[in-house]
This record gives sequence, C-alpha cells and structure tokens, in this order.
Amino acid sequence: MFKRILIANRGEIAVRIIRACREMGIRTVAVYSQADRNAVHVGLADEAVCIGKAEASDSYLNMERIISAAIAVGAEAIHPGFGFLSENAEFVQMCEQHHITFIGPSSELISRMGNKSEAKKTMRQAGVPVVPGTEEPVYNLEEAKREAERIGYPVMIKASSGGGGKGMRIARSREEFAVSFQAAQQESIRAFADDSMYLERYVQNPRHVEVQIMADKYGQVIQLGERDCSIQRRHQKMIEESPSPALTDEIRKKIRSTAVQAAKAVNYESAGTIEFLLDDSGEFFFMEMNTRIQVEHPVSELISGVDLIREQILVAAGEALSVAQEDILFRGHAIECRINAEDPIRGFLPCPGTITHLHLPGGNGVRIDTASYEGYQIPPNYDSMLVKVITYDRDRKTAIRKMIRALDEMEIEGVETNLEFQYDILHQKDFQEGNFTTDFISIHYEL
Amino acid sequence: MFKRILIANRGEIAVRIIRACREMGIRTVAVYSQADRNAVHVGLADEAVCIGKAEASDSYLNMERIISAAIAVGAEAIHPGFGFLSENAEFVQMCEQHHITFIGPSSELISRMGNKSEAKKTMRQAGVPVVPGTEEPVYNLEEAKREAERIGYPVMIKASSGGGGKGMRIARSREEFAVSFQAAQQESIRAFADDSMYLERYVQNPRHVEVQIMADKYGQVIQLGERDCSIQRRHQKMIEESPSPALTDEIRKKIRSTAVQAAKAVNYESAGTIEFLLDDSGEFFFMEMNTRIQVEHPVSELISGVDLIREQILVAAGEALSVAQEDILFRGHAIECRINAEDPIRGFLPCPGTITHLHLPGGNGVRIDTASYEGYQIPPNYDSMLVKVITYDRDRKTAIRKMIRALDEMEIEGVETNLEFQYDILHQKDFQEGNFTTDFISIHYEL
Repeated sequence: MFKRILIANRGEIAVRIIRACREMGIRTVAVYSQADRNAVHVGLADEAVCIGKAEASDSYLNMERIISAAIAVGAEAIHPGFGFLSENAEFVQMCEQHHITFIGPSSELISRMGNKSEAKKTMRQAGVPVVPGTEEPVYNLEEAKREAERIGYPVMIKASSGGGGKGMRIARSREEFAVSFQAAQQESIRAFADDSMYLERYVQNPRHVEVQIMADKYGQVIQLGERDCSIQRRHQKMIEESPSPALTDEIRKKIRSTAVQAAKAVNYESAGTIEFLLDDSGEFFFMEMNTRIQVEHPVSELISGVDLIREQILVAAGEALSVAQEDILFRGHAIECRINAEDPIRGFLPCPGTITHLHLPGGNGVRIDTASYEGYQIPPNYDSMLVKVITYDRDRKTAIRKMIRALDEMEIEGVETNLEFQYDILHQKDFQEGNFTTDFISIHYEL
Repeated sequence: MFKRILIANRGEIAVRIIRACREMGIRTVAVYSQADRNAVHVGLADEAVCIGKAEASDSYLNMERIISAAIAVGAEAIHPGFGFLSENAEFVQMCEQHHITFIGPSSELISRMGNKSEAKKTMRQAGVPVVPGTEEPVYNLEEAKREAERIGYPVMIKASSGGGGKGMRIARSREEFAVSFQAAQQESIRAFADDSMYLERYVQNPRHVEVQIMADKYGQVIQLGERDCSIQRRHQKMIEESPSPALTDEIRKKIRSTAVQAAKAVNYESAGTIEFLLDDSGEFFFMEMNTRIQVEHPVSELISGVDLIREQILVAAGEALSVAQEDILFRGHAIECRINAEDPIRGFLPCPGTITHLHLPGGNGVRIDTASYEGYQIPPNYDSMLVKVITYDRDRKTAIRKMIRALDEMEIEGVETNLEFQYDILHQKDFQEGNFTTDFISIHYEL
C-alpha cells in the first residue's frame, strides 16, 4: 500500500480524501495556493506544500508544480479529486512518466472517454444504448423519412450548421414529419445557405440518471447504485439522490447492469460514472462517462455502505476490489444538497466573502462534508460550494424530511447562499412526489 | 399522531428527541432549569418552559412542575429521554392520571422490571437464563454440595450477611468446594454470627452484552441487534459497539432471540434493553431490563437503519411497529465513544466550566450527537457527557480506525475531558482484537 499520497485538490474533497487516507494509515500531502493558506485541508494533512498564486492556472492546474511537489516530498501517488486536473490526460501522462501513481484510470481511457463522439461510438459498439440518430447528414425528404422511422418518434430535426434554435424542429409523429422537415430545411437554407440536416431521437421530459461503478485491474466491475441528478440549474447539479425515484425495479436493474457492461467494454479501472438520459417511457441513453470521483458520491456511499475513496486508493495500489457485488447490501435512501456561496436573487452570482457565523446540523442520518468554518474567508478564485449536506433514512420521504430538518438547523452568516433556495425546492410538491425532469428549476423558478 | 410532545430532559438526548419530532412534523416543548437558559435544546424546540432552579430535584426531577408544564402548553405526550424520570413509575402514573401519554412502557411494567429480584424471577419463569443460584439460604455442607452440583462450577459462595468480601469464596471445582464452603461459613460465623450461606454461579471474565428490543401494543417485538458495553469504568459505560466482537454467529442468534422471548414474556411495549452477562464459555445470563432508550442507542440505529426514537413515538401513539424483523438489514459495525468533561488524572472527577473552543469531526460514517457548542458553560449540576462520537463502517477494524481519525480531528478547549483517554483505549491491542471483559479499564489503567 502507498505510504504517502499527494492530494492535488482543495476544499471539501481534499478533506474527504485526507480522511480516507488517515483511516488507511497513509500519510497525506496537501498542496495549496497562496489564497488557501488557512484552508482546512492544509491543516489536516500531514504535510503541505504551497504551489503558487491564487489563480488556479498558477496552482491547482499547474501540472509541473504539482508533479515537482510530489517528487520533493516522495509521494508515491496523487489523488486528483474532481475538477482541476482530474480528467486531464496530459497530467496523467506526466504522472506515468514520473512513476507516480495517478489515482484514477489510465491517460488512454481518460482521452477516449473525454472525446464525447468517440465515447458514444465505443458505447454503441458495446451494445449500450445511445440516443439514436443519423450518423451522416441527410438532404432530401424521402431519405429523412426512412431515417426517422428507424430512429423512432419523436424526432429532433437539426440543421448541420444550426445554432440558436434556427433550423430546428421537433416532429412528434410520422404525420408531422414532412412539414417539419421541409420547414427546418428551408430555414437552414435561408439562414446558413446549407441544406444538410441531422435527425436524432428527441428525449422527452428527460431525467439525469447516472450509475456509480468501481473497477479494479483484474476485470472486476461493481455498481454502487444509480443517482438521480435531475435537479440542476444550467447543467449545475443542485440536489442528488439515490436510488432514483423515477425507476421501476426492472429499469433500475437494467440501467445498473448496462453501466457495468459499459465499464467492462472499455476495460475500465477506478471509480467512474456512466451518465444516462432517461425519457418518460423509461428508455435510457448513454450521455457520457465521468472518469473520476464525483461531488455527489456520498449518496452512493450511504446506500451501499462502500467507501468509494478508499476503494479508489486500494484499486490504484493494485489490490482487488474489497467487496463483491453480491456482498453489497443496498439499504435506505440518501439525498445531497449542495450549499453554495451564491445569490439566487442575482442569477446565482458567486458570493465570496467571510463566513462570520456557521452552525452545522448533526445527529442521526446527517453527514456533513465541508472545508468551511466560522471565520473562513472564501477566496473568489474557485468554485462556490461551501457544504455538502447529505441525509440518509429508510426511504425517500423520511430522507427528505430529515434534509428539511437539517437545513432548518443550519446557520451561515456573512455571505449569501442558496440555503433558502434549496429549502424551497425540498418543499415543492413535485419534488416530494419525485415528479421532476432536468427542467424542474427552469419550470418552477425561471418561467 | 401527536401534535405536541414535551421533552422532559436536557442535553444531547433532548436534542435527539426534538430532531426526531421535527422530522415527524410534531411540535416540541422543551423544559429547562435556570442553569440551562442557554442550552441548545431550549433554542431548538418550538416552545420552552422554565421549570425551576438548577438542582435537578427542583427541575428535571420535579414531577409536578413537568406535568403542569405539559398541561399548560397542551402537550399530549411526554418523552422522558434517559436518566431523570425515565424509569420512575410514580411519574408514569401521574402522566396516566392526567391523560398524558408517557413515551415508554406502562408504570406497572417499569415497577416490575425495576425490582431486580422480581425481574429475575419473571425472566427465569419465562425460560430466560439467569445466573443460577440458591433461592433459599443453605446451612450445611451436604446440602450445599448438592446445590453446587445443580448450579455448576465455578461457584461463588457468599455469606447471607456478607459484605466487603467477608464470608466469600470461589470454588472452581468439586474438589475445592468443601474446603471453600467451610472456610466461608466459619468466616461468616465469626464476622456476622450467621451461618446462612448463598451459592451462585461465578461468571468468569464477564462481558456486558445487551440486546435492543422494540415492541408495539399489538404484541409485535423486534430486536435491533446486541451491543457490547464491556468497556466501562465502575459500571459507567465508556465505549459501546454493535455487533459484539465476542459472539459466534450461533450465540449471537441465540442471545437476540432470547431477548425477544424475554420482552414477549412481560408483554413489553416501547424501546427496551435486555442486559446480559456473557461468560467466557459463551453462556449468557439475564442481568436486568432497562425500560427506556439508552445513551448508546445510536450504534443500533446505524447497523439496523431503524430510527429508535421515531419508533418509540409511533408505538406510543398506538401505531404498529413500522418495520418487521425480516425487513431489517443489519449492515456494518458501529462504535460510540462518550466524551465527558472529566479528568482521568484525578479519578475522572467531573470538570464543569466553559468550552472556549470546539471543533467537531465529520465526514463519511461519522455521527455526532451533542448539545455542546463553543462558548457553552457546562453547569455543574448534571452529568458530564459532552459529545457522543459514533462511527460506522463496514467492519469493526475500519470503524475503530474511523473513530481514531474522528477523535484526532476533535478539539475541545476550556475543560478537561476524557478524549485522550478514549483515544488511548482505541489503540490498545486487546481492545483492537476484541479481547476484553468488564475489567478492561481496571486491568489496563488502574492496576
């Protein structure tokens, strides 16, 4: 096992990784920017190295400095957390060149999954459903009709040169198709002087459902359940939960096993997430694969009882997965709310500043992951997430009630946060009934 | 369901109960003494009533005032927590007379289990093993020999009038018995002028193992696993865990089902604990039944996923248990350390004072139950427990490591605590190997 791991990150995920290392008896090395001198992760690690100025490009994104720090302190491995360099194939190659273990998949896998169209192609070949569509442009109605039949309705018609909604139509049925196609094509010719069109299945009322997987070097892949991350604002997730309230037992089983199949198809290693778009008929389509640990991983840990960071470290050190699929007892329901320093009134503008008062909730079924403290000066240079509040209870209804209770107890003063906004979402009838899509926030708050 | 519950307690257990009520949508009424004006439970409850001076006899033990407060605010039920009035049959009768639901068993059951010899008799009749012994005094060797054979060796020989070890011997085998009995009896005659003797099985290297049960008005009884509470100092528990590392699967099954049998035998209702003494051969004997929730209940909540306070409230309101035995998925291992304001160097003398700095641990698998905060003035009038740190992980070894990590992160300044002492116990090889009896602390720290 590694003796010393460098954590190439900051904030609560750095704290999360340091804690896992401590529990495994591994020494930790924090890196920090000049803006993070008083950060919790710096105090908590066994050693800490300042790697540059506040700007991420000069510190947490500065590959040479991080590699140098790792060599200087004798770290055998680097955990990248999420964001920053976690999905940077070049950085992983640098680690490989310097014989430092990158805690994550290989640079080759990261590149391959990072290229969205190649990832989709790989998944299609592996039998994983992707959103059906034309692979080549179509030019005339007859050909388009044949393709539309193959794809299945509703069909999204898009101009190859399209943008801003121009040259775009939805055909909900065969009857609508001809008129819609011709209208879209005419629009495209007028706007872009281009008659080449694409078709793809229109995913109706989509939900974002992703599956957590974990794999070792020996071809073993396990899934730790799915997460529903449909509550998002402009692709920024706000609330995540597991299991998803949208799935029947049959679809749940299918989406989980499809994710395992996808990971096996690419010989995946380490923690990863397969993101799917789920439509209102229960069909799901591969969107992308995240080749790192994610912000929302705690909900999977709570329902599965598996420590994902620990497992990542074990696997990176060449050990087999410490748990087999059949030994995982899924139990209960978990929800995570991300509490950010941002102002919902002013378009969720980040609000750096000083936390003058902080009281965190606790008790039965409440997990807090944070690097914030009373007196903490939030630097303006990084993301605005302050605290992850995660609640766990026997079922969804009680987990929501527990989250409401926890947010009720929580006090943050000195900066604007989305606490009240999260609190409001939790009280929405549609949320409580599990009746929502990725449009939930725009429907309830922006229209 | 109740609309309003009065919590006749203080400290972390009052906070625990208020949280459960909030999650159930029940209004809470705190009571407090003049010393607890700034206590967390007072601020957290929907209403709060001052019931008297700092001395418990004038406040938390003052039955009339508590009943009056409940009537004044219109509380339909009282949750007594633990300690104070939680096992006071007279108080329960007062509640019954005023048509206030006491959240716990009936006064009759509390009286019956409160009388230790009657409780043992009841259990013996119900087929629950109690420490075998003579029911009547014995006077001569021949009769004593017959009784000793029936009881089984090793046998403890005790003078009826005995005390301070006088007239007491252990006979480890038949061969030793005659000499030991005669010596003890002679000693008794000389010291107390009394030749009447008692015999009982000597429980060797005993462990304290207790089983959490929960029962409703409809005769349903479930068990939520056992807890090993052998790490105690002069009968004050310090560390509790579940499951017990001392049990084989077979004995675990047997002790749990025996506890259910015991609870059924007395038509038990609400949360209760059956305490057993376990000897080094795996035999166990009923010690007593606690007719209330216990300090260490969180470890059972973590491994079973059942919220015991919520279940107590449901059952008191006349509902059936919300979970059946076969639906409980036991998972992982949980440990609790009680962090007290006391000085291990000075005989664990309580150390009231002001907490000038407090940092609590968090993250994956760490539960904190506390009513302490930075600036809190600990009143000298009540017990010294400040924080319960509970860790949960897949197995005992990792739960211990997690506890060490959590205590490492914890900072309490301003008062002496047993934090370092707990930390030391966790590092003891015997503790880590699960190799301990109720004498652990006296063996490792007092001899």
